[in-house]
Amino acid sequence: NIKSKYGLDKIGDDCAVLTKDSTNDLLMTSDMLIEDIDFRLDWTTPEFLGHKALAVSLSDIAAMGGIPVWSMLSIGVPKDLWETDFIDRFYSGWFALANLHGVQLVGGDVSRSTDKLVIDSTVGGDVAHGKAIKRSTAKAGDAIFVTGKLGGAAGGLELLENGFRYSFSKREKYNDLLLKQVKPQPQLSTGKLLRVGHIASSMIDLSDGLSSDLHHLCRQSETGAKIEADAVPIHPDLSHFYVADDCLAMAVNGGEDFELLFTVGEKNISLLDSLDVTRIGVMTANIDTIELTDDIKTIILPPNGYRHF
Amino acid sequence: NIKSKYGLDKIGDDCAVLTKDSTNDLLMTSDMLIEDIDFRLDWTTPEFLGHKALAVSLSDIAAMGGIPVWSMLSIGVPKDLWETDFIDRFYSGWFALANLHGVQLVGGDVSRSTDKLVIDSTVGGDVAHGKAIKRSTAKAGDAIFVTGKLGGAAGGLELLENGFRYSFSKREKYNDLLLKQVKPQPQLSTGKLLRVGHIASSMIDLSDGLSSDLHHLCRQSETGAKIEADAVPIHPDLSHFYVADDCLAMAVNGGEDFELLFTVGEKNISLLDSLDVTRIGVMTANIDTIELTDDIKTIILPPNGYRHF
Repeated sequence: NIKSKYGLDKIGDDCAVLTKDSTNDLLMTSDMLIEDIDFRLDWTTPEFLGHKALAVSLSDIAAMGGIPVWSMLSIGVPKDLWETDFIDRFYSGWFALANLHGVQLVGGDVSRSTDKLVIDSTVGGDVAHGKAIKRSTAKAGDAIFVTGKLGGAAGGLELLENGFRYSFSKREKYNDLLLKQVKPQPQLSTGKLLRVGHIASSMIDLSDGLSSDLHHLCRQSETGAKIEADAVPIHPDLSHFYVADDCLAMAVNGGEDFELLFTVGEKNISLLDSLDVTRIGVMTANIDTIELTDDIKTIILPPNGYRHF
Repeated sequence: NIKSKYGLDKIGDDCAVLTKDSTNDLLMTSDMLIEDIDFRLDWTTPEFLGHKALAVSLSDIAAMGGIPVWSMLSIGVPKDLWETDFIDRFYSGWFALANLHGVQLVGGDVSRSTDKLVIDSTVGGDVAHGKAIKRSTAKAGDAIFVTGKLGGAAGGLELLENGFRYSFSKREKYNDLLLKQVKPQPQLSTGKLLRVGHIASSMIDLSDGLSSDLHHLCRQSETGAKIEADAVPIHPDLSHFYVADDCLAMAVNGGEDFELLFTVGEKNISLLDSLDVTRIGVMTANIDTIELTDDIKTIILPPNGYRHF
């Protein structure tokens, strides 16, 4: 594995955590988005892309309970886009989200690229010293929760691949699924609340997908997990386009929802009453093994491995 | 200008400066390098490229008198390179320079790109609170200095374009020029010394070239400058390949030497005795105008504009 080879996985959390002073730590995260690998220009708009370039980094800050403060944004823009209003519209989407969360642009660059658009976003944030919520601190017996609904971004991606496009003029029943993919919303307020209230025992954001990200959490915490299939909050609009088992597969494996996955000790569960979160299972002592169970049977869930019962 | 439109030039210095605590500021700089725009793979080696990806950012830290501490490195690697030892060799060059300066890799990613290699490097550093050396604080009458010799990187670039390649087996007279281009050395110790000794009144690194970077300094400081052509320290190896006037043009306009350009008040000039620096002129009250003078006449020097006397 290339990341372990260069010590990048020892970092292990959504953000790097550096001691800033005796009361605060500095959180930092960096994401590179490359055209035709991470996005397609004809699937999105420049504004959505500017939003998403920042949102994916803000989600990493959210996953540690932090508050985003500044960003360095570098974009490499090919010639054909340079001559359009692309850059204007990209920044307008970026700044709309940045202003919403009080994030200040402190550096970066706009340069030419050869033929593909390249975006690199670094975001820095604050968190109380030693209080960032890590992946490595879940305990067997802790309940597992997620924010929001899952699988929408994966369903939206498949719709985009099949030619669907977000409609600004009509309220289409695929619009929300496409938005989950092209304009994800970082869960900053929930992430912060889970830290300030000392509620979550561990946390990660759902970028790779529930099965993969839960594996990251289990590996770092040296625990296992048991998920109740019926409890997974499937994005309700998926059922307009997909059969039930495919909806569950998207919710379990699909990436880029940018919701939060976190664990909570029994005594703190009542503190979650006012939040839009769903209990989906429990951490176990069965190290690095994730079980997915329904009323009838239980399967072992490999990372990205759910097919069907 | 695209940078001013989005507030990127208000940033104005080589690094963003953020207050860290009451005694220290955080310096941050970000550089994106794109294959076939910023480098060509057949002109360099993976090790040199790893070195340069970090060196350009370290040079920005040096230009503010800072000490580099951490880096986030993201690279997007096309398929054909993925299957070679490229990544190994790239990181080996990166870490060799990082270890030399005590820089810790705290994050980043290795991902796939379509067909071009993309590198984004963010480096953070420390500087005493309020003591970062800025571009905006030169005064008319201050002497202008540069470190090292100039034009080597531009001469090396032209040699690369003409088919010359660095020789590991023989001591070729073009080797040092090629190294200036493919393996620049950030001037961290000089930069730090100029800050700790309260010697420099302003500073910038020579990335765009003397004429352009001096214009940046003059604009930010609301001053002008007068450069003595005979005092400009031209890289000695250029004369093996170029006529005298072309050598001067490379030293005045050529980018990527990553030396330091700084100003010093009269009373501090004696403090520079032990350093490899050259006095090349004086800041003037002739706002935003750069004069280049020799024994015979004086020309006005536009950014990147020197042709010949």
